Amino acid sequence: MSGDPLPSWNEGKVKEAIIDFVARTSSAGSSDYVPVNERIAVFDNDGTLWCEMPVPVQAYFVNDRLKALEPLHPEWQRTEPYKSMLAGDIKTAMATGIKGLAELVMVTHAGMTTDEFSLIVRSWLAKARHPKLNRHFTETIYQPMLEVLAFLRARGFATFIVSGGGVEFMRVFAEEVYGVPSHQVIGSSIKTHFEMRGGKPVLSREPVLDFFDDKAGKPVNINKHIGRRPIACFGNSDGDREMLIWTTVGRTDERPSFGLIVHHTDADREFAYDRQHVLSGQLDKAWDEAETRGWILADMKNDWKTVFPTAARTAQVH
Amino acid sequence: MSGDPLPSWNEGKVKEAIIDFVARTSSAGSSDYVPVNERIAVFDNDGTLWCEMPVPVQAYFVNDRLKALEPLHPEWQRTEPYKSMLAGDIKTAMATGIKGLAELVMVTHAGMTTDEFSLIVRSWLAKARHPKLNRHFTETIYQPMLEVLAFLRARGFATFIVSGGGVEFMRVFAEEVYGVPSHQVIGSSIKTHFEMRGGKPVLSREPVLDFFDDKAGKPVNINKHIGRRPIACFGNSDGDREMLIWTTVGRTDERPSFGLIVHHTDADREFAYDRQHVLSGQLDKAWDEAETRGWILADMKNDWKTVFPTAARTAQVH
Repeated sequence: MSGDPLPSWNEGKVKEAIIDFVARTSSAGSSDYVPVNERIAVFDNDGTLWCEMPVPVQAYFVNDRLKALEPLHPEWQRTEPYKSMLAGDIKTAMATGIKGLAELVMVTHAGMTTDEFSLIVRSWLAKARHPKLNRHFTETIYQPMLEVLAFLRARGFATFIVSGGGVEFMRVFAEEVYGVPSHQVIGSSIKTHFEMRGGKPVLSREPVLDFFDDKAGKPVNINKHIGRRPIACFGNSDGDREMLIWTTVGRTDERPSFGLIVHHTDADREFAYDRQHVLSGQLDKAWDEAETRGWILADMKNDWKTVFPTAARTAQVH
Repeated sequence: MSGDPLPSWNEGKVKEAIIDFVARTSSAGSSDYVPVNERIAVFDNDGTLWCEMPVPVQAYFVNDRLKALEPLHPEWQRTEPYKSMLAGDIKTAMATGIKGLAELVMVTHAGMTTDEFSLIVRSWLAKARHPKLNRHFTETIYQPMLEVLAFLRARGFATFIVSGGGVEFMRVFAEEVYGVPSHQVIGSSIKTHFEMRGGKPVLSREPVLDFFDDKAGKPVNINKHIGRRPIACFGNSDGDREMLIWTTVGRTDERPSFGLIVHHTDADREFAYDRQHVLSGQLDKAWDEAETRGWILADMKNDWKTVFPTAARTAQVH
């Protein structure tokens, strides 16, 4: 259909709701018109803009970095969670819980400058491939969501990523892949410090958590980085529940708002998971509240005509 | 002069240097051309975009808030730094050092929701006036710097504020006064937490420092919020030294860069201060390094034709 802003979405209530919201908030004269500087849309990343199954992309990065660093750490062969991760058993390693995961993140994400870390991530993304989908991770992005991003921007919205993923990990590809500039990428962070090395300034990445951008942390970080409430929020899991609430519930400014949850129902083309999935991406409480709160569930199997971009349309970070 | 982007700047080397840098980084075909998404300019606020003498604006806010809260705290009459602040002796109160100041900031900036805090600041800005300049604080902004902001934006730059001041304090007026949207305002912050009150979400401001955005903290916060190095930096004091270095020294991307220091030399129209001023706004080490590092000193007395906007040109937050 000519002029269709969302060609990869099947016709139906969900597609209509997206188009309707964007039209009435961005059309002059509409009673729901929102000034352009308040048209803020936030998107979760893992499971909302790209695939997070069977484990989040950054877990593969951690795994590959551990292998690269293993020669310097013979003790890892005898210590969890390193042992399981090195054996390729990411699920067992992740089951060691937040403390073990934090250790794995720090050992692979800290101890270098910010410039060095970007290069490591960029070079990894250029080679690594998704084990089941057999494509680069930057090709596991969702074509229908790229269209939502582009549609919103065409109508004056500023689009932000608000993810539990590492902010400096995402910034390596977010601009090329999603069209989201680095200053509109919000995520979890570790501390850095400024120092001079050989007369040149560097920011050194420390193995200390700065902020965990998930659940109730998301509205906090939205406020810290954006400084105003979004009017549209796109997520897929209970990790996005609080930012969906922050966007849509009890607004003091009486602006119209929109919340959408990507429901992973498509085991053939991607993955099917919701309440039972506990490692990440669990959709349970937010699903229960969706009807009352007016959040729309996008059913991946029925609402999405295509899931991933065709090769020609994929911007790759190579 | 028709078409002059900086009419409030006197002709001379400083004005030429600004126009030259902006022209060669934003003109297609120039050997110094910088892609639009890398055209990032950062500005200190206190002393760079608006007046910070005899004490920073936020100190007046603290003082007035203490007076408003005094009936609830009779003990303040006997305790420093409250006693001096309430007696109007801000300099003595500030001399109690960082611990005393932090206490004053927390008691006046925390214990309410983010929405409530914004309202308090907005209502204060509408009434409070600068004691010497006899105008609203939002009218103590510098007309020449407004022109630099507008000129940069007209040439595709994204302009950010990076200030030691409180981020949620500045966001109340930054968009109306400087044309800088809330997500491009970076500053010091206190912690907030998300909670539901009567079925509605709020962010509650806690009396705990989150980040002090000054000196070596500025490059750290630039990286956290912007995620790439600026190519232009405007400051006025040693508090801006590290972000000037981060912008202009030893870049790995070999981009051209620009650093400018506003030198307060004009006791008649504003204030004259530099090395001797210790409370804030001290320009000492950064001045010593300016020549070696190629930072330009803008001499307020000689380079600025006018200092403050005329009443008609002042956007007021009323």
